[in-house]
Amino acid sequence: MATSTIDLSLADIYDLAKTTLLKHGANEENSEAIANTVTTAERDGSISHGLFRIPGYITGLKSKKVDGTAKPEIEQVTPIIFRCDAKSGYAPIAHQYSLPPLIDAAKNFGLAAVAIQHSYHFAALWPEVEKIAEAGLVGLTTVSYLPWVAPSGGTTPIFGTNPMGFAWPRAGKNPIVIDMATASMAMGEVMIAARDGHEVPLGTGLSASGELTTDAAEIIKGVLLPFGGHKGSAIALMVELLSGPMVGETFSYETQKGDNANEGPARGGQFILAMSPDILSGKNSNDQTDRFFERYDAIEGARLPGARRHKNREDKGPRAVNAALIETIKQLRDNSEEVIVE
Amino acid sequence: MATSTIDLSLADIYDLAKTTLLKHGANEENSEAIANTVTTAERDGSISHGLFRIPGYITGLKSKKVDGTAKPEIEQVTPIIFRCDAKSGYAPIAHQYSLPPLIDAAKNFGLAAVAIQHSYHFAALWPEVEKIAEAGLVGLTTVSYLPWVAPSGGTTPIFGTNPMGFAWPRAGKNPIVIDMATASMAMGEVMIAARDGHEVPLGTGLSASGELTTDAAEIIKGVLLPFGGHKGSAIALMVELLSGPMVGETFSYETQKGDNANEGPARGGQFILAMSPDILSGKNSNDQTDRFFERYDAIEGARLPGARRHKNREDKGPRAVNAALIETIKQLRDNSEEVIVE
Repeated sequence: MATSTIDLSLADIYDLAKTTLLKHGANEENSEAIANTVTTAERDGSISHGLFRIPGYITGLKSKKVDGTAKPEIEQVTPIIFRCDAKSGYAPIAHQYSLPPLIDAAKNFGLAAVAIQHSYHFAALWPEVEKIAEAGLVGLTTVSYLPWVAPSGGTTPIFGTNPMGFAWPRAGKNPIVIDMATASMAMGEVMIAARDGHEVPLGTGLSASGELTTDAAEIIKGVLLPFGGHKGSAIALMVELLSGPMVGETFSYETQKGDNANEGPARGGQFILAMSPDILSGKNSNDQTDRFFERYDAIEGARLPGARRHKNREDKGPRAVNAALIETIKQLRDNSEEVIVE
Repeated sequence: MATSTIDLSLADIYDLAKTTLLKHGANEENSEAIANTVTTAERDGSISHGLFRIPGYITGLKSKKVDGTAKPEIEQVTPIIFRCDAKSGYAPIAHQYSLPPLIDAAKNFGLAAVAIQHSYHFAALWPEVEKIAEAGLVGLTTVSYLPWVAPSGGTTPIFGTNPMGFAWPRAGKNPIVIDMATASMAMGEVMIAARDGHEVPLGTGLSASGELTTDAAEIIKGVLLPFGGHKGSAIALMVELLSGPMVGETFSYETQKGDNANEGPARGGQFILAMSPDILSGKNSNDQTDRFFERYDAIEGARLPGARRHKNREDKGPRAVNAALIETIKQLRDNSEEVIVE
């Protein structure tokens, strides 16, 4: 069964996102930051983080748990440590405020970190680590979420899907960008599979009764598993610690207690680290890393992380967007009795 | 077939290691640092990093590629960045010199890193990250090695077994410690399996002809695979970048070009990062993390990383060591014509 799609230009995607957000109480600055994140996801072919997320963003605004007018506050704790109170807003505005001082400090001292608190992160992680890499720095970030993932060997969820992002800068080229859930599959992908009636690989998760299943809808009711057995589970634990107590925020299981369990994201923390290879190494390694990446690219069957997105990005034309999704968003945008008045 | 073992006290293990190293040209300071690393591995039941490594350490000294009298030099690049020239010595002495300033800087500024160069790392990573955690800091470290691991989807090796270590501090308790190769299995474990004639799980690696095999000896001649498919492969890539160009050192494939291909380790870099959760978060999260770890521990079938080692550590008694290995080491120690005269 082919899914019906409609072609939208990137400008149309941005406008649809922004106007829908504005209609539901987000201010200009927040709407633009979120619309930009959504549009870059569609541009790069990362559809599970594109317009697909708009209904969730709107649900969060409608329930008033997320403040669409949030103005983040940045505290400089030491010359290299920043704490960003996202003021219960969505993450893109927190990044817009905190990345510039983070990047400046890392360029001067070699390392810098920002602890983002009280943020609703509902997007991929590559936008923020790519921005860090575009400044010639290595970016590393982690986020935790609601407790949907059981540790290796167990059936009780304790981890979020716990993504991590990592970007390595390349002079004059797109950075190398890793962005992966430490869950076997991102919940966004499981949701897409459930919506479209596709099976997921065995090992993705367990049903509510603790059985392995390929039915995405059953896994949404049950529990996800980490990727890669006990090693992937250890990485999920690391992400849980970095995104929670490292930044003064909640563990996924604590996040759940404070959430209203609607369809939007839950409030939590984000850890972002920027590192300067030039300062650490004492030299410019661009030629050395270019040779390595060329060698890697020459291996049949291997693919550099982020390369597919960067290739999709070259296409400046329209994107084929799920027609039912566009209809849903337009109804959200045009159905005025649903508007939250500030 | 039961392997023949001999009981050795921890003091005897230390003495056997130290006197053997001294006999082969390592000085007092280096011999003690290495013997300490080897003994703590045996103490914790991490036998693939215990006395099992001594013949390799000695091979490195005998071939003169490793300097057993190395005195590392530390350069402070910025208030939080250190570069440690390990002077072609084994890693334990580089850690002994570089961890104290690293820890001090991280306690003052919130983050600090050391780029270790020209080091021969032939041990587990938990000793160094545990020391950082014992100072109340989070430790993260990576090392690359010789190109033994193919990226996901390929059959040509480009990654080292690329371990990463991570430790989270706990007040008055052992830290949580992750120490894992990003290869499906550490080469040390594959070597043990080959020695003892044990099979390894399918997926561990490919034979020289590119076929999946459970024969550890065939994999040593072929190529290892990363853990966890393309996600584990991405983590292996991250470790490769952090351990090479991030610290001004070689990629695994470059390391191989400069190595004499004997049985000892190869020279390379190490990235070590120390981070203060207290400074980043603005609070003490010990009670919060204790509650999380208790919750985790209550999940049937789940195990906290490092817990098995810490339990083994409680036993102050002798350790059962492979008898043939002890004989090999004693011959190395007592066979005077093999001694390198300084």
